[in-house]
Amino acid sequence: MTTAPQTAVIGVGGYAGAELARLLLHHPRLAGRPPIFLGREEEAGGARIPLAEVHPQLADNNGAGGLTIEPFRWEVLKEDGVDTIFLAVPHEQSREWAPRLLAEGVRVIDLSGAWRLDQDENRAVYKFTDADPKAAASIQKEAVYGMPELHREAIRSARLVANPGCYATAIILALAPLTREGRIDRTHGIVCDAKSGVSGAGKSPTAKTHFMNAADNLSAYAVFGHRHTGEMLEQLGVAGNEIIFTPHLLPVPRGILTTIYLRLKTATTAERIDACYRSFYDGSPMVRWTGTRLPEIRHSVRTNFCDIGFALAEDGQRLILVSCLDNLLKGAAGQAVQNMNLLFGWPEQEGLL
Amino acid sequence: MTTAPQTAVIGVGGYAGAELARLLLHHPRLAGRPPIFLGREEEAGGARIPLAEVHPQLADNNGAGGLTIEPFRWEVLKEDGVDTIFLAVPHEQSREWAPRLLAEGVRVIDLSGAWRLDQDENRAVYKFTDADPKAAASIQKEAVYGMPELHREAIRSARLVANPGCYATAIILALAPLTREGRIDRTHGIVCDAKSGVSGAGKSPTAKTHFMNAADNLSAYAVFGHRHTGEMLEQLGVAGNEIIFTPHLLPVPRGILTTIYLRLKTATTAERIDACYRSFYDGSPMVRWTGTRLPEIRHSVRTNFCDIGFALAEDGQRLILVSCLDNLLKGAAGQAVQNMNLLFGWPEQEGLL
Amino acid sequence: MTTAPQTAVIGVGGYAGAELARLLLHHPRLAGRPPIFLGREEEAGGARIPLAEVHPQLADNNGAGGLTIEPFRWEVLKEDGVDTIFLAVPHEQSREWAPRLLAEGVRVIDLSGAWRLDQDENRAVYKFTDADPKAAASIQKEAVYGMPELHREAIRSARLVANPGCYATAIILALAPLTREGRIDRTHGIVCDAKSGVSGAGKSPTAKTHFMNAADNLSAYAVFGHRHTGEMLEQLGVAGNEIIFTPHLLPVPRGILTTIYLRLKTATTAERIDACYRSFYDGSPMVRWTGTRLPEIRHSVRTNFCDIGFALAEDGQRLILVSCLDNLLKGAAGQAVQNMNLLFGWPEQEGLL
Amino acid sequence: MTTAPQTAVIGVGGYAGAELARLLLHHPRLAGRPPIFLGREEEAGGARIPLAEVHPQLADNNGAGGLTIEPFRWEVLKEDGVDTIFLAVPHEQSREWAPRLLAEGVRVIDLSGAWRLDQDENRAVYKFTDADPKAAASIQKEAVYGMPELHREAIRSARLVANPGCYATAIILALAPLTREGRIDRTHGIVCDAKSGVSGAGKSPTAKTHFMNAADNLSAYAVFGHRHTGEMLEQLGVAGNEIIFTPHLLPVPRGILTTIYLRLKTATTAERIDACYRSFYDGSPMVRWTGTRLPEIRHSVRTNFCDIGFALAEDGQRLILVSCLDNLLKGAAGQAVQNMNLLFGWPEQEGLL
Repeated sequence: MTTAPQTAVIGVGGYAGAELARLLLHHPRLAGRPPIFLGREEEAGGARIPLAEVHPQLADNNGAGGLTIEPFRWEVLKEDGVDTIFLAVPHEQSREWAPRLLAEGVRVIDLSGAWRLDQDENRAVYKFTDADPKAAASIQKEAVYGMPELHREAIRSARLVANPGCYATAIILALAPLTREGRIDRTHGIVCDAKSGVSGAGKSPTAKTHFMNAADNLSAYAVFGHRHTGEMLEQLGVAGNEIIFTPHLLPVPRGILTTIYLRLKTATTAERIDACYRSFYDGSPMVRWTGTRLPEIRHSVRTNFCDIGFALAEDGQRLILVSCLDNLLKGAAGQAVQNMNLLFGWPEQEGLL
Repeated sequence: MTTAPQTAVIGVGGYAGAELARLLLHHPRLAGRPPIFLGREEEAGGARIPLAEVHPQLADNNGAGGLTIEPFRWEVLKEDGVDTIFLAVPHEQSREWAPRLLAEGVRVIDLSGAWRLDQDENRAVYKFTDADPKAAASIQKEAVYGMPELHREAIRSARLVANPGCYATAIILALAPLTREGRIDRTHGIVCDAKSGVSGAGKSPTAKTHFMNAADNLSAYAVFGHRHTGEMLEQLGVAGNEIIFTPHLLPVPRGILTTIYLRLKTATTAERIDACYRSFYDGSPMVRWTGTRLPEIRHSVRTNFCDIGFALAEDGQRLILVSCLDNLLKGAAGQAVQNMNLLFGWPEQEGLL
Repeated sequence: MTTAPQTAVIGVGGYAGAELARLLLHHPRLAGRPPIFLGREEEAGGARIPLAEVHPQLADNNGAGGLTIEPFRWEVLKEDGVDTIFLAVPHEQSREWAPRLLAEGVRVIDLSGAWRLDQDENRAVYKFTDADPKAAASIQKEAVYGMPELHREAIRSARLVANPGCYATAIILALAPLTREGRIDRTHGIVCDAKSGVSGAGKSPTAKTHFMNAADNLSAYAVFGHRHTGEMLEQLGVAGNEIIFTPHLLPVPRGILTTIYLRLKTATTAERIDACYRSFYDGSPMVRWTGTRLPEIRHSVRTNFCDIGFALAEDGQRLILVSCLDNLLKGAAGQAVQNMNLLFGWPEQEGLL
Repeated sequence: MTTAPQTAVIGVGGYAGAELARLLLHHPRLAGRPPIFLGREEEAGGARIPLAEVHPQLADNNGAGGLTIEPFRWEVLKEDGVDTIFLAVPHEQSREWAPRLLAEGVRVIDLSGAWRLDQDENRAVYKFTDADPKAAASIQKEAVYGMPELHREAIRSARLVANPGCYATAIILALAPLTREGRIDRTHGIVCDAKSGVSGAGKSPTAKTHFMNAADNLSAYAVFGHRHTGEMLEQLGVAGNEIIFTPHLLPVPRGILTTIYLRLKTATTAERIDACYRSFYDGSPMVRWTGTRLPEIRHSVRTNFCDIGFALAEDGQRLILVSCLDNLLKGAAGQAVQNMNLLFGWPEQEGLL
């Protein structure tokens, strides 16, 4: 019998952090060895604070079960025997901390965009300024893109898992079965019209996230320039001018729906599309293929599933894919736990149903 | 000095009907000659009912200003000297009533889909069963598609104005400047991803419009088969396989946003796009061209404007258009009043600002 | 080691039914013995249907895990060895079925209002027409009001648990510590201003639950006449003219917040109020006393907690209590599972965190 | 024939400011002499900015009709012949500017809380630090509380109108007919449970107004301590311990609903209540008495009406009043225009229907 790993979360104060805390606290394999919550320095201000103060919904009847957020110190890792860290911090901070964590022998699941991109031209959008560019490049190379449905084996033995972006997850999972088989006529372009709930915009109050601006509204943003585009290019093997990705801000708290338009190289039947996806996602417990019943946000929200469905035009070539997921779960914290499950050889969906 | 026309609305009980009532009641040219509200028989049940009973927001402090909805009888038209009718009734009923109204010398602005489509193959989706197909065909031919920005002159002298569909208005206005100049590379297809508020789904309570299903949700529907598609084909002059239109149900009460993806035949600059639209909509007071500041639903809602903006990719060929309007105003009742203004030679925006 | 009970749910198609299904499917004590879902006849139409067809969010990646809703037949109970039934059917049907179920030796947790009220004058509002009034009266007497915080011991040995109403739970839990100690000056009246999300209005599409009527709105209803009032009178021991309960329909999917106004017999301090509630709810894992930090709907929603807080006026006598809960969980399905836990001697919060 | 007054708005950038701009721009008596929009210095930064930049919904198709916000300078008043100013600035700024504006002969309608309260103990909550306390006190004395339904005559000749608070308007209008007749048994206390949309919390992004915190939520705030309480005490003539006012933050953009609980001194009938209110509000065009049909937020929102209805208990003594209004219109900008109409002897509802 093995003991449970000692997990820790750095940056538990945000929306994804709250979901991560919730999932880890109830994960059956971590029973008896609860995760340690470490604050980014600015959050904790040097003192422990009750977890329930930041996330009252996580309180139990005794006032948060005594769980606290502890200010981050490097010494904590050794003192508490931490062997697995979830990093839910800004990109830049992850570029700085992940190398050091790996050097200390800790496995890292990083929720930021810091380590997701292989190619310099895609990563350029983040404008990283690494203190030791060589070391960063070497770690970059080692990082595994944490999408279990595409990289299951590599994740199992990874030291650094780069948890995918929420939009990227919804779009890559919808397209991968077709790009892998080379069935898309890429000369016509793939249009990805995506819509996300407000939690995707983060916890800081801004004009954009003000209720008066977000409610009863819809707006497009970051047109031709969203940072998740690079992940799609690399994971799907398409060129920058072959895919258009337009995100919109939806007046819902959580959830993403993407509507994807493409043309197939040759006409096919709905049955063959169906068979292609069923076969591709056989053995992937966290994808629900809904066939010609198109998914809706409300069915995937608060689950770790990515739901995917389709409609094929009469010509058998023009295809619409619709995918849905919860941006804080399959699009962030849930996928991170799915990756942890792979790291430890547990069933992929453990603690996620 | 001319006297005001005597207007009447048949089918004032729905959402578009309420807006129509409000606009007509405050229209400066109709001051002193208020519109008559006529109920579809099933609504009124034979008796007059206070308008404020159906639409409490329209009540004044004396309880609806004494305005009532009167059961429809053909005799009312003569008795009250009605010369202009707004038909806000189901398609089938309009196919039956409009010919008779025209025969009685009344001008008709029809808000249904009954008379919008010229070509049989596009109209087939409605499955009309005309009692006198020949007469219907002749009236069909006479009907003018009520989009002032495209058919201003024809509307002025029309007897029957077919008020456009809400989605069709948003998409046709966004695309017309480019299709008129033949600048779109139609072989790549035009993708119209549209999102509409719940009022577009009508007033009858259904599973789809239940708060629990619509709120915190987004869903696509009528994929490859929405009835407004025919209007786009006819007005834009494109073929059925050259345009894809996908509507989605948004968790907002009102408003439409469409995101349109297309490729231009030749590379161009943002300045030329800007100039093309400015020139096309010069003289169209109800279109607001927002240039590269993309429109949002909240800015056009409760106005009669259609807002249109754009983003052009670096390659100068891939173009995204975003258009917004209020589905009950520019997408229905407001555009109907705009058409009435043209019928009577008044300024197009009269009573709409 | 004991085997798990065989549970069944009748009426799994509604909102509370979906939550009940979800909770029971993941209840650790029922692992290996999943609940049986039985449809009300009209729902199932005689044939088994996949659970995921009615509640797509409950589907697993194989399409609902093969779970089905089976048409209800009395024979199923014996065939499948059902020993515990959750009844989520209309009041009248429960009046008819519960006696027969008890006669067959099945324990019943009833989610309707059928068995909650002891006194004829309170029950009158339901207008029950029992076929055998004598038998009904005897069963009525035996039924235990299923609020663990007040009747924990009686529930453990009950055959028929009458699961409380959602509003009643929020208000009774907020007031019980004070009424039990006789501290309220009842001559001044207790005002309970309650606000509930739309799921409380049920799944049938109605004008009231239409998105256009519920969204961006607030309305009071059932003023001086809501059916849950009787439960408050009986459980709190107050007279009908001593308490006013006004429900409002909130534009949120789930959640109840009640604001309660009362006057204490004698002036006291915040510390004493605090001590009174802490002591009363010591040992009640599903109540979170938040003291002077007032609860909000979003913190209790999707939990089985009832959160309660307070504010005391400077005079030490005028007291405001605020309580929050999720109407589908602590207000229905969650409390039902809590009662099941008591029936079987398991920890009260098992499967509810 | 008189010329139109020259109006100006200082502080047009907020939500009430936008409504004020919209109302004044379409006010029939101001046709030909549009209002001047003056920015608080920090807003305009010294340069004119287009009004449509701050409020895109107010743009016309030429880009805001050329309207601009001009930085405030005292000289503007003379240069442009301004004779009537709407002050929509913070309380402190109004305390400082209003005296100087009056000295320059300008009439002032102040939307802040600066001049609403007569009595020192009520005003204390604002902690004003007047440079010249004596002058401030004298102006304070002269200011008229701008609720036309209570102070119509005084407003007509006022130099300084203190426009009421939004909550205060909803509650005072609901209670005034009864307090004026001395019919309330005040020993039992009047409970005012009020709920407001998010625009009431202002335009600055805060944690409270973040979509994630406001949507799908309800929370009470400022319990026993909201600043509008003083207005209720003074206008209704009740003591501080006789009324409890609890505001809640509703997940809607606009609108207030208040539920008011009280006991009458002697039992009465619904007919007499009805007659009392009808008589009191006879001649008040902006109050809609709805009798026993209780008002809902959606019917009053985007109107300048205050809707009031009631329910009387069987005992004829316990009374519930419900009032609704739009916090930005009757609760702010609309009432300000109503006051302007009185100042100039125009019909009270001019430009408000």
